[in-house]
Amino acid sequence: MTDKSLHIGVVQFACSDTIEENIATAYRLVKQAAAKGARIILVQELFSGHYFCQEQNSEHFSRAHALNDDPAVRALSALAKELGVVIPISFFEKAGQVFYNTVAIADADGAILGIYRKSHIPDGPGYNEKYYFRSGDTGFRVWNTAHGRVGVGICWDQWFPEAARAMALLGAEVILYPTAIGSEPGQPDFDSSRHWQRTQQGHAAANMLPVAAANRIGSETVAGKTQSYYGSSFIAGPDGALIAEAGRDDEAVLVASFDREALATTRASWAVFRDRRPDLYGVLGTADGGRG
Amino acid sequence: MTDKSLHIGVVQFACSDTIEENIATAYRLVKQAAAKGARIILVQELFSGHYFCQEQNSEHFSRAHALNDDPAVRALSALAKELGVVIPISFFEKAGQVFYNTVAIADADGAILGIYRKSHIPDGPGYNEKYYFRSGDTGFRVWNTAHGRVGVGICWDQWFPEAARAMALLGAEVILYPTAIGSEPGQPDFDSSRHWQRTQQGHAAANMLPVAAANRIGSETVAGKTQSYYGSSFIAGPDGALIAEAGRDDEAVLVASFDREALATTRASWAVFRDRRPDLYGVLGTADGGRG
Repeated sequence: MTDKSLHIGVVQFACSDTIEENIATAYRLVKQAAAKGARIILVQELFSGHYFCQEQNSEHFSRAHALNDDPAVRALSALAKELGVVIPISFFEKAGQVFYNTVAIADADGAILGIYRKSHIPDGPGYNEKYYFRSGDTGFRVWNTAHGRVGVGICWDQWFPEAARAMALLGAEVILYPTAIGSEPGQPDFDSSRHWQRTQQGHAAANMLPVAAANRIGSETVAGKTQSYYGSSFIAGPDGALIAEAGRDDEAVLVASFDREALATTRASWAVFRDRRPDLYGVLGTADGGRG
Repeated sequence: MTDKSLHIGVVQFACSDTIEENIATAYRLVKQAAAKGARIILVQELFSGHYFCQEQNSEHFSRAHALNDDPAVRALSALAKELGVVIPISFFEKAGQVFYNTVAIADADGAILGIYRKSHIPDGPGYNEKYYFRSGDTGFRVWNTAHGRVGVGICWDQWFPEAARAMALLGAEVILYPTAIGSEPGQPDFDSSRHWQRTQQGHAAANMLPVAAANRIGSETVAGKTQSYYGSSFIAGPDGALIAEAGRDDEAVLVASFDREALATTRASWAVFRDRRPDLYGVLGTADGGRG
C-alpha cells in the first residue's frame, strides 16, 4: 500500500450549459479538495453541461465524444496529473454507432486506467436515459489507482446492491458514485434525497467500506421545463454512518480519510464475506425470481 | 389481496432460560401487538431460552427439537390460530443427525406453511453458531400468508443484501428478521446497533419494501460470561426510514401498517427491478470475486 489511508474528496456544484465554465468550476473545487488532503476526488455525473436527459431530443447526441476526444476527460486528467490525485471523470461517450454514460478513471499521473459504462440505465419522466445510452457492457470494475483500489458506479447504479457487492467482491476499498438526481416532474412535494442516501449507506454498511456520492445542485431549464437537483452529496463510513454531508443548495467540498488497514481488518473480522452463500444466490441471476 | 394493508408487529423482550416463561412473555406481547392491529407479528430469534451460542457446549444440543415436537412452535402456532395472525417462530431444529437455526411460519389458521433454515451462520467470540448449526439448505423463501406475502431471514442473514434481494425477487411484500445481537466479548465500547439498523434500512430502501427486525434485550450469563443484547428492534419503511423503533433496554411492542397497493405501485414506478442486469451479476456467484 502506498497511502496508509484513503483520502476521499467529493465536490458538488451547479452546472451551467457551457462546458468551459463547468470545467473551470470543477478545477477550482477539485483543487480545494486536494488542498484539504483528498487524493481520490469525485466530481458529479455528466458535469460538462445541463442534465439533458430531462428531455428526448436528438440534438443532444452532439454532446457526446469518444474517450480520446472528450474535453472534460482531457481537462480533468491533466488536472489529476497536476495535483497527483485520482479523478473518475463522467462523460457522454460516443462509441461507434452507440452511446454510453461512461466514467474514465484518471490516475494520479493523468493516465486513463480504463472506463466503466453505466450498467443500470433509468428511464422515466425527467430522466430519459434509455433514449440516449445503451446499457453498459463493461461490467463492474475496480481500479488499482496510486491512492487506493477504487470502485466506481454511476448514478442509477447506486440503487442496486448487486453493483456495490460486485465491486466489493472485486476488492474495492471505496465505492464512488457520480450522480445527477433531484426533483421529479409533476411531483413538487416528492423528495427522494434521504431514500437515495439510505440506499447507499446500506451498501457501505453491508460491504463495510466507505461509499461516496457527488450530486449536482441548482435548477436547470431544458426545453422550457425546469428540474432542480438536490445536492446532499456525502461520504459514508464503513458502518454506513454519514461522515460528511453537503447541503441541498450549496457548492461544497467534502473530505474524509479512512485507515486502509483498519478497513481491511474490520471486513475480515466481521466476516460477512466468509459466510456468503453463492450456492443459494441463483435467483439473483433472474429478472423475475424464476416465477415467470 | 385479503388485507388492504400489511399490518406489521414486532415484539422485544428479555429471555430467561425457562422456556415456559419465555412462551408466556411472547404470548403477552404478541397479544398486545394484535390488539394494536398487527396481523404479521415478529418474535425474536431463539426466544425459548438464553442465547446459548455464547459458548461451545455440547449440552446445548438438548435444546433442539424436531419441527413437530418443538414447544415454542406448538405454543405460538396455537396463538397464531387464536388471534388470527401470522407468526414466524424461531427455534433450534433437530433434523436427523444435524441441527439448524430455523423459523417455522405459522399462518393465521395455525397451520405451519413451512420452514426456512438460516443460510448465513456467524461464528466468532460470543456468537459461536457454526458449532451448533449446519448452514441452511432451504434457500430463501417467501410465504403467501393470510395477511400478506412474507419473506423471513434470520439474524446474520440480515447483513447480506443478497438474501433481501432474493426475497424481494421472490415477491416478498415485507422482510422480517428475528434476531439476537448485542455486545461483543472484550469490546465493551463497541456498539454495532446503528450499523445493524443501517444495513437493514438499506435493504428496505433498495428493495422498496418494509423491513422489520425483532431483537432481544437484557443481560444473559452463560458459563460465567455475561453478554448484553441491545434491543433497538425496528420497522423500516420502503424508503429505509425508521417508522418505529424500540429502546435498547425496554420491553416493546411496535406496530406499523403499509398500504399494499401503494407499495406495489412504488416498486413498479421506481423501476429498479426493470433495470436489473443479471447478465452482469455473475461475480456474485463467486466467493472471492473470481480472483482466486
